[in-house]
Amino acid sequence: MGAEQSGVRAYAGAMGRVRLGILGGGQLGRMLALAAHELGVQTRCWDQREDAVAGHVGGLHVDDFERPARLDAFLRGVDVVTTEWENVPVALLEEIERRGVPVRPGSLALRVAQDRVLEKNLARSLGIPTPAFVAARTLGELEGAVREVGLPCVVKTRRFGYDGKGQVVVRKAEEVAACWGALGATAGGLIAEGFVPFARELSIIAARGVDGQTRFYPLVCNEHAGGILRVSTSPAEGVSEGVRARAEEYAGGVLGALEYVGVLAIELFEVGGELVFNEIAPRVHNSGHWTIDASATSQFENHVRAVLGLPLGDAGMVAPGVHAGMVNLIGSMPDARQVLRIAGAKLHDYAKEARAGRKLGHVNVLAGSRGELMERIGQVRGLLR
Amino acid sequence: MGAEQSGVRAYAGAMGRVRLGILGGGQLGRMLALAAHELGVQTRCWDQREDAVAGHVGGLHVDDFERPARLDAFLRGVDVVTTEWENVPVALLEEIERRGVPVRPGSLALRVAQDRVLEKNLARSLGIPTPAFVAARTLGELEGAVREVGLPCVVKTRRFGYDGKGQVVVRKAEEVAACWGALGATAGGLIAEGFVPFARELSIIAARGVDGQTRFYPLVCNEHAGGILRVSTSPAEGVSEGVRARAEEYAGGVLGALEYVGVLAIELFEVGGELVFNEIAPRVHNSGHWTIDASATSQFENHVRAVLGLPLGDAGMVAPGVHAGMVNLIGSMPDARQVLRIAGAKLHDYAKEARAGRKLGHVNVLAGSRGELMERIGQVRGLLR
Repeated sequence: MGAEQSGVRAYAGAMGRVRLGILGGGQLGRMLALAAHELGVQTRCWDQREDAVAGHVGGLHVDDFERPARLDAFLRGVDVVTTEWENVPVALLEEIERRGVPVRPGSLALRVAQDRVLEKNLARSLGIPTPAFVAARTLGELEGAVREVGLPCVVKTRRFGYDGKGQVVVRKAEEVAACWGALGATAGGLIAEGFVPFARELSIIAARGVDGQTRFYPLVCNEHAGGILRVSTSPAEGVSEGVRARAEEYAGGVLGALEYVGVLAIELFEVGGELVFNEIAPRVHNSGHWTIDASATSQFENHVRAVLGLPLGDAGMVAPGVHAGMVNLIGSMPDARQVLRIAGAKLHDYAKEARAGRKLGHVNVLAGSRGELMERIGQVRGLLR
Repeated sequence: MGAEQSGVRAYAGAMGRVRLGILGGGQLGRMLALAAHELGVQTRCWDQREDAVAGHVGGLHVDDFERPARLDAFLRGVDVVTTEWENVPVALLEEIERRGVPVRPGSLALRVAQDRVLEKNLARSLGIPTPAFVAARTLGELEGAVREVGLPCVVKTRRFGYDGKGQVVVRKAEEVAACWGALGATAGGLIAEGFVPFARELSIIAARGVDGQTRFYPLVCNEHAGGILRVSTSPAEGVSEGVRARAEEYAGGVLGALEYVGVLAIELFEVGGELVFNEIAPRVHNSGHWTIDASATSQFENHVRAVLGLPLGDAGMVAPGVHAGMVNLIGSMPDARQVLRIAGAKLHDYAKEARAGRKLGHVNVLAGSRGELMERIGQVRGLLR
């Protein structure tokens, strides 16, 4: 693939060093930067805060996303731009694209993924089952929407929801007004979604290169609590070949429709052996952090490879028979010495200040069998406060 | 292990962040910093050059090692100090120790490893076979030394030799004067070493914690050309259990005698099923770079863990049956896209300017068998200019 096709200066070792700009400087930007450095790529993360933790491990550019004061300076220092935060303003991505700097994934992908109605419309158009859903911009529309999808249902803001924020479960018709009171003022409107009686939550992490090649990681099983991901395991237990193939078909469809470049995650519900679309994360994803230690190529490295126009790497396990897990460290950190004594455990500490509900790090766990994996994950969880 | 025993502020996640100072900011400092960041540890590398590549991935302090102008400033920003370059002046390490900042490994280890006579005396005192060797400070002494060790022999500077620099092979008595002319002016004197008709060169990478616990990586087989390491493979082929145990016994003896904390490499010659001491590298080592991708815990992570007083990690392969290799990228970089297409290959680019003979990066290779490993290494080597 030539420089023309990849759209950035050809990467050829020390002679053509590419500089990667990353919009967002949290833990995802930090881990992207660490992966980029292994490939010799210099990074600059743009964050709105001086103390963004990606700044410990590479260049940091501090500026506002909505009203940037130093966009030119940022763009002079990078050859290609990617995002680690899905709520970066689409207008900023479009402005960067207008100036001729490649943005990967592009503004279209972010625009769709930022809106729960647009992403579900996309899924529906690709034949991916979704929960029943109806958009609403007024209390009257919300009442109609709830009637249409049926009770119980989940009402969510169309935009800016994450980790369970911006959503309310509605069980009775009388609760709709209170729900509107809680969420209705949000710009962008609401969506009422039918309740999915799912057996479990799965996700698929997928990558697509500039040339359209794709890679799919083994399906991940996710356990949430309080709206926040707690534990992921992969390969998800008891997934039939048919379900795996369907998940890859769905992910491939989304990647293609969005002309996506980079890593993307799709969260899915498993219901009676079927997969139901939940949402898209247009970036590296918390449910793929285990790939750092357990995959032949991590999600971070494959994202960097994709956005630089490099060939994608093997998304299989680092060796046959490896089972992997990830335990999020939220709100407070366990004693590192105790974590490091657990067989197969790999500590990842984002060097953040502790704060209730904040993702401070994660522990990846490798094992030779599902049983051993769950035992080791149990040991890690036993250290959490 | 308490803070008292480890000598640094107890590491306890976000509440007690330790700052690691690294003397030297080349590729080893860079890879140490990357490993430290995964654990949430902030790093500051001290290098004599502004463009040191460790500066891309963490803090950089630029100052002279012989006559530091800003030692206080460096020490205020770190909690523990380690080295990535064995030729850091011992006087500097001693000064840092005097000021009460832990230096790991300590000045004793560097003092011994910097001097080919002291390190061989240590080996001999521990019962580790060495080549015949005699020190020489004058031409007359060198003539006597060469007679004593016999011809052919290798004459080396006692200090500051690396990658084949500072050594001359002497095959005839008449060559001694020319050898003295080439090397005799070196401060620190010379050493004449008996020629070892070795079958192959092996190395063992070993780690020792603050509490004396040790870890040993599988033996590595090394191939040099032009005095520079080209290819390492591990586990070394056809190593008997007895040879493996002897290598670990030797390494354990050296670690203990030096009260060593951190990772150390010992280069060995294999001669008729016996191991003969060659030299110590008191740091993470080029022949251990494959551990980044193939080991449960890399040499870089274990070095960081050791110097911070954390428990050491498993030095075994990431999964049973993994075979690992490393191909150095010297003088010029291959096309990254071609490297990345080779199954099992992991590219590590140090982001250095290309220069003849300079180590610019390496490719780690993983495989499921020795045969597959050698085939993949052959593919990587085929890309080198």
